[in-house]
Amino acid sequence: MFKRIDHVGVAVQEIEPAIALYGGDLQLAEAHREVVEEQGVEAVLLDVGENHVELLAPLGPDTPVGRFLAKNGPGLHHVAYQVDDIDAALQACRDAGLRLIDEQPRTGIRSSRVAFLHPRATGGVLTEIVQPAGAH
Amino acid sequence: MFKRIDHVGVAVQEIEPAIALYGGDLQLAEAHREVVEEQGVEAVLLDVGENHVELLAPLGPDTPVGRFLAKNGPGLHHVAYQVDDIDAALQACRDAGLRLIDEQPRTGIRSSRVAFLHPRATGGVLTEIVQPAGAH
Repeated sequence: MFKRIDHVGVAVQEIEPAIALYGGDLQLAEAHREVVEEQGVEAVLLDVGENHVELLAPLGPDTPVGRFLAKNGPGLHHVAYQVDDIDAALQACRDAGLRLIDEQPRTGIRSSRVAFLHPRATGGVLTEIVQPAGAH
Repeated sequence: MFKRIDHVGVAVQEIEPAIALYGGDLQLAEAHREVVEEQGVEAVLLDVGENHVELLAPLGPDTPVGRFLAKNGPGLHHVAYQVDDIDAALQACRDAGLRLIDEQPRTGIRSSRVAFLHPRATGGVLTEIVQPAGAH
Protein backbone atom coordinates (compact mmCIF):
# COMPACT_ATOMS: atom_id res chain seq x y z
CA MET A 1 0.00 0.00 0.00
CA PHE A 2 2.78 2.49 0.92
CA LYS A 3 5.38 3.07 -1.83
CA ARG A 4 7.90 5.05 0.16
CA ILE A 5 8.22 7.63 2.92
CA ASP A 6 7.01 10.80 1.22
CA HIS A 7 8.34 13.12 3.91
CA VAL A 8 8.97 13.75 7.55
CA GLY A 9 7.26 16.87 8.86
CA VAL A 10 9.37 19.02 11.19
CA ALA A 11 7.79 21.75 13.32
CA VAL A 12 9.92 24.89 13.54
CA GLN A 13 9.42 28.27 15.17
CA GLU A 14 10.84 30.25 12.26
CA ILE A 15 11.32 29.11 8.70
CA GLU A 16 14.54 30.91 7.73
CA PRO A 17 16.88 29.42 10.37
CA ALA A 18 15.42 25.99 9.55
CA ILE A 19 16.16 26.49 5.85
CA ALA A 20 19.70 27.54 6.76
CA LEU A 21 20.09 24.28 8.71
CA TYR A 22 18.54 21.86 6.23
CA GLY A 23 19.35 23.66 2.99
CA GLY A 24 22.74 24.96 4.11
CA ASP A 25 24.42 22.81 6.75
CA LEU A 26 22.76 19.54 5.69
CA GLN A 27 22.89 20.43 1.97
CA LEU A 28 19.32 19.49 1.00
CA ALA A 29 17.92 21.19 -2.10
CA GLU A 30 14.89 23.42 -1.49
CA ALA A 31 12.14 22.14 -3.78
CA HIS A 32 9.01 24.07 -2.91
CA ARG A 33 7.62 26.74 -0.62
CA GLU A 34 3.94 27.34 0.07
CA VAL A 35 1.73 29.10 2.59
CA VAL A 36 -1.17 26.76 3.38
CA GLU A 37 -3.65 29.16 4.99
CA GLU A 38 -6.17 26.39 5.67
CA GLN A 39 -3.63 24.57 7.85
CA GLY A 40 -2.11 27.73 9.29
CA VAL A 41 1.44 26.99 8.17
CA GLU A 42 4.23 28.09 5.94
CA ALA A 43 5.68 24.88 4.52
CA VAL A 44 9.00 24.29 2.78
CA LEU A 45 9.90 21.02 1.07
CA LEU A 46 13.52 19.97 0.65
CA ASP A 47 14.59 16.96 -1.41
CA VAL A 48 16.31 13.89 0.11
CA GLY A 49 16.50 11.56 -2.88
CA GLU A 50 12.88 10.67 -3.64
CA ASN A 51 11.89 11.63 -0.08
CA HIS A 52 11.49 15.06 1.48
CA VAL A 53 11.82 17.00 4.66
CA GLU A 54 8.81 19.28 5.16
CA LEU A 55 9.54 22.25 7.41
CA LEU A 56 6.40 23.64 9.04
CA ALA A 57 6.31 27.10 10.61
CA PRO A 58 3.01 28.22 12.16
CA LEU A 59 1.25 31.34 10.88
CA GLY A 60 0.20 32.05 14.48
CA PRO A 61 -0.01 30.45 17.93
CA ASP A 62 -3.63 29.31 17.51
CA THR A 63 -2.90 26.85 14.72
CA PRO A 64 -2.20 23.10 14.92
CA VAL A 65 1.56 23.56 14.53
CA GLY A 66 1.53 26.59 16.86
CA ARG A 67 -0.14 24.50 19.55
CA PHE A 68 2.25 21.60 18.89
CA LEU A 69 5.21 23.94 19.40
CA ALA A 70 3.76 25.40 22.61
CA LYS A 71 3.32 21.88 24.01
CA ASN A 72 6.38 20.05 22.66
CA GLY A 73 8.83 22.58 21.33
CA PRO A 74 10.32 22.19 17.86
CA GLY A 75 10.95 18.72 16.47
CA LEU A 76 9.47 15.82 14.53
CA HIS A 77 5.78 16.47 13.88
CA HIS A 78 4.55 13.71 11.54
CA VAL A 79 5.54 11.14 8.94
CA ALA A 80 3.89 10.86 5.54
CA TYR A 81 3.72 7.78 3.32
CA GLN A 82 3.24 7.99 -0.43
CA VAL A 83 0.53 5.99 -2.19
CA ASP A 84 -0.73 5.77 -5.78
CA ASP A 85 -4.39 5.62 -4.78
CA ILE A 86 -5.35 7.43 -1.59
CA ASP A 87 -8.98 6.36 -1.76
CA ALA A 88 -7.96 2.69 -1.75
CA ALA A 89 -5.42 3.32 1.03
CA LEU A 90 -8.00 5.04 3.23
CA GLN A 91 -10.41 2.18 2.63
CA ALA A 92 -7.72 -0.32 3.65
CA CYS A 93 -7.15 1.69 6.84
CA ARG A 94 -10.89 1.75 7.51
CA ASP A 95 -11.11 -1.99 6.87
CA ALA A 96 -8.31 -2.48 9.42
CA GLY A 97 -10.34 -0.52 11.96
CA LEU A 98 -7.90 2.40 12.15
CA ARG A 99 -9.31 5.72 13.31
CA LEU A 100 -8.95 8.52 10.75
CA ILE A 101 -8.74 12.28 11.17
CA ASP A 102 -9.75 12.82 7.55
CA GLU A 103 -12.50 10.54 6.31
CA GLN A 104 -12.02 12.00 2.83
CA PRO A 105 -8.80 13.23 1.21
CA ARG A 106 -8.18 16.95 1.12
CA THR A 107 -5.82 19.09 -0.89
CA GLY A 108 -2.28 19.25 0.49
CA ILE A 109 0.95 20.92 -0.53
CA ARG A 110 1.77 20.97 -4.28
CA SER A 111 -1.83 20.00 -5.10
CA SER A 112 -1.38 16.54 -3.59
CA ARG A 113 -4.29 14.65 -2.04
CA VAL A 114 -3.68 13.95 1.64
CA ALA A 115 -5.35 12.45 4.70
CA PHE A 116 -4.23 12.00 8.28
CA LEU A 117 -4.70 8.94 10.45
CA HIS A 118 -5.39 9.56 14.12
CA PRO A 119 -2.26 9.25 16.29
CA ARG A 120 -4.23 7.18 18.80
CA ALA A 121 -4.61 4.59 16.04
CA THR A 122 -0.92 4.63 15.17
CA GLY A 123 0.94 4.42 18.46
CA GLY A 124 1.26 8.17 19.00
CA VAL A 125 2.66 8.83 15.53
CA LEU A 126 0.75 11.44 13.54
CA THR A 127 0.63 9.67 10.17
CA GLU A 128 -0.24 11.20 6.82
CA ILE A 129 -1.03 9.48 3.53
CA VAL A 130 -0.08 11.39 0.37
CA GLN A 131 -1.07 10.85 -3.23
CA PRO A 132 1.06 13.25 -5.25
CA ALA A 133 -0.58 15.37 -7.95
CA GLY A 134 -0.45 13.42 -11.20
CA ALA A 135 -0.42 10.01 -9.52
CA HIS A 136 -3.23 7.50 -10.19
CA MET B 1 25.32 14.26 1.14
CA PHE B 2 22.07 12.45 2.11
CA LYS B 3 20.81 9.91 -0.47
CA ARG B 4 17.41 9.22 1.03
CA ILE B 5 15.57 8.87 4.32
CA ASP B 6 16.88 5.56 5.64
CA HIS B 7 14.20 5.21 8.30
CA VAL B 8 12.01 6.86 10.86
CA GLY B 9 12.51 5.51 14.37
CA VAL B 10 9.33 4.94 16.35
CA ALA B 11 9.41 4.38 20.11
CA VAL B 12 6.92 1.76 21.29
CA GLN B 13 6.18 0.21 24.67
CA GLU B 14 5.82 -3.32 23.32
CA ILE B 15 7.06 -4.71 20.06
CA GLU B 16 4.32 -7.19 19.17
CA PRO B 17 1.35 -4.78 19.03
CA ALA B 18 3.52 -2.40 16.99
CA ILE B 19 4.34 -5.16 14.51
CA ALA B 20 0.62 -5.96 14.29
CA LEU B 21 -0.04 -2.31 13.43
CA TYR B 22 2.76 -1.72 10.92
CA GLY B 23 3.11 -5.23 9.53
CA GLY B 24 -0.59 -6.07 9.67
CA ASP B 25 -2.86 -3.04 9.40
CA LEU B 26 -0.44 -0.91 7.38
CA GLN B 27 0.88 -3.89 5.38
CA LEU B 28 4.61 -3.22 5.65
CA ALA B 29 6.91 -6.22 5.21
CA GLU B 30 9.01 -7.11 8.26
CA ALA B 31 12.63 -7.09 7.09
CA HIS B 32 14.77 -7.57 10.18
CA ARG B 33 14.65 -8.00 13.93
CA GLU B 34 17.55 -7.49 16.30
CA VAL B 35 18.21 -6.97 20.00
CA VAL B 36 20.83 -4.22 20.30
CA GLU B 37 22.00 -4.70 23.89
CA GLU B 38 24.40 -1.77 23.70
CA GLN B 39 21.51 0.59 22.98
CA GLY B 40 19.03 -1.19 25.25
CA VAL B 41 16.44 -1.86 22.55
CA GLU B 42 14.73 -4.52 20.55
CA ALA B 43 14.52 -3.12 17.03
CA VAL B 44 12.37 -4.24 14.12
CA LEU B 45 12.78 -2.90 10.59
CA LEU B 46 9.89 -2.91 8.15
CA ASP B 47 10.25 -2.00 4.47
CA VAL B 48 8.56 1.03 2.89
CA GLY B 49 10.00 0.97 -0.62
CA GLU B 50 13.69 1.76 -0.15
CA ASN B 51 12.95 3.35 3.22
CA HIS B 52 12.11 1.72 6.53
CA VAL B 53 10.17 2.12 9.72
CA GLU B 54 12.31 1.13 12.72
CA LEU B 55 10.26 0.09 15.72
CA LEU B 56 12.16 0.51 18.99
CA ALA B 57 11.05 -1.18 22.20
CA PRO B 58 13.18 -0.61 25.31
CA LEU B 59 14.80 -3.53 27.11
CA GLY B 60 14.13 -1.71 30.38
CA PRO B 61 13.12 1.68 31.81
CA ASP B 62 16.70 2.87 32.34
CA THR B 63 17.59 2.95 28.66
CA PRO B 64 17.48 5.87 26.20
CA VAL B 65 14.20 4.69 24.64
CA GLY B 66 12.79 3.78 28.06
CA ARG B 67 13.48 7.32 29.28
CA PHE B 68 12.05 8.78 26.06
CA LEU B 69 8.83 6.83 26.59
CA ALA B 70 8.57 7.89 30.23
CA LYS B 71 8.90 11.54 29.20
CA ASN B 72 7.02 11.66 25.90
CA GLY B 73 5.00 8.49 25.53
CA PRO B 74 5.17 6.44 22.35
CA GLY B 75 5.72 8.17 19.02
CA LEU B 76 8.32 9.45 16.58
CA HIS B 77 11.79 9.13 18.09
CA HIS B 78 14.30 10.03 15.36
CA VAL B 79 14.91 10.27 11.63
CA ALA B 80 17.85 8.64 9.87
CA TYR B 81 19.40 9.69 6.57
CA GLN B 82 21.38 7.30 4.39
CA VAL B 83 24.84 8.17 3.12
CA ASP B 84 27.51 6.35 1.11
CA ASP B 85 30.38 7.64 3.24
CA ILE B 86 29.62 8.34 6.88
CA ASP B 87 33.11 9.64 7.63
CA ALA B 88 32.75 12.32 4.95
CA ALA B 89 29.22 13.13 6.12
CA LEU B 90 30.35 13.56 9.74
CA GLN B 91 33.20 15.77 8.59
CA ALA B 92 30.75 17.92 6.60
CA CYS B 93 28.59 18.24 9.74
CA ARG B 94 31.66 19.18 11.80
CA ASP B 95 32.70 21.72 9.16
CA ALA B 96 29.20 23.24 9.38
CA GLY B 97 29.63 23.58 13.14
CA LEU B 98 26.94 21.06 14.04
CA ARG B 99 27.19 19.43 17.45
CA LEU B 100 27.51 15.64 17.31
CA ILE B 101 26.55 12.96 19.79
CA ASP B 102 28.90 10.47 18.14
CA GLU B 103 32.25 11.88 17.07
CA GLN B 104 33.04 8.56 15.43
CA PRO B 105 30.64 6.12 13.74
CA ARG B 106 29.58 3.08 15.73
CA THR B 107 27.96 -0.18 14.69
CA GLY B 108 24.19 0.01 14.22
CA ILE B 109 21.48 -2.42 13.21
CA ARG B 110 22.31 -4.89 10.39
CA SER B 111 26.04 -4.07 10.77
CA SER B 112 25.52 -0.54 9.46
CA ARG B 113 27.76 2.33 10.55
CA VAL B 114 25.77 5.04 12.32
CA ALA B 115 26.21 8.33 14.15
CA PHE B 116 23.78 10.70 15.80
CA LEU B 117 23.76 14.48 15.57
CA HIS B 118 22.75 16.34 18.70
CA PRO B 119 19.08 17.43 18.64
CA ARG B 120 20.11 20.88 19.88
CA ALA B 121 22.02 21.26 16.60
CA THR B 122 19.07 20.12 14.50
CA GLY B 123 16.06 22.02 15.79
CA GLY B 124 14.96 19.41 18.32
CA VAL B 125 15.06 16.54 15.81
CA LEU B 126 17.20 13.59 16.89
CA THR B 127 19.00 12.91 13.60
CA GLU B 128 20.95 9.80 12.66
CA ILE B 129 23.29 9.23 9.74
CA VAL B 130 23.49 5.67 8.41
CA GLN B 131 25.96 4.04 6.09
CA PRO B 132 24.53 0.60 5.31
CA ALA B 133 26.82 -2.43 5.48
CA GLY B 134 28.34 -2.95 2.06
CA ALA B 135 28.13 0.71 1.06
CA HIS B 136 31.29 2.68 0.24
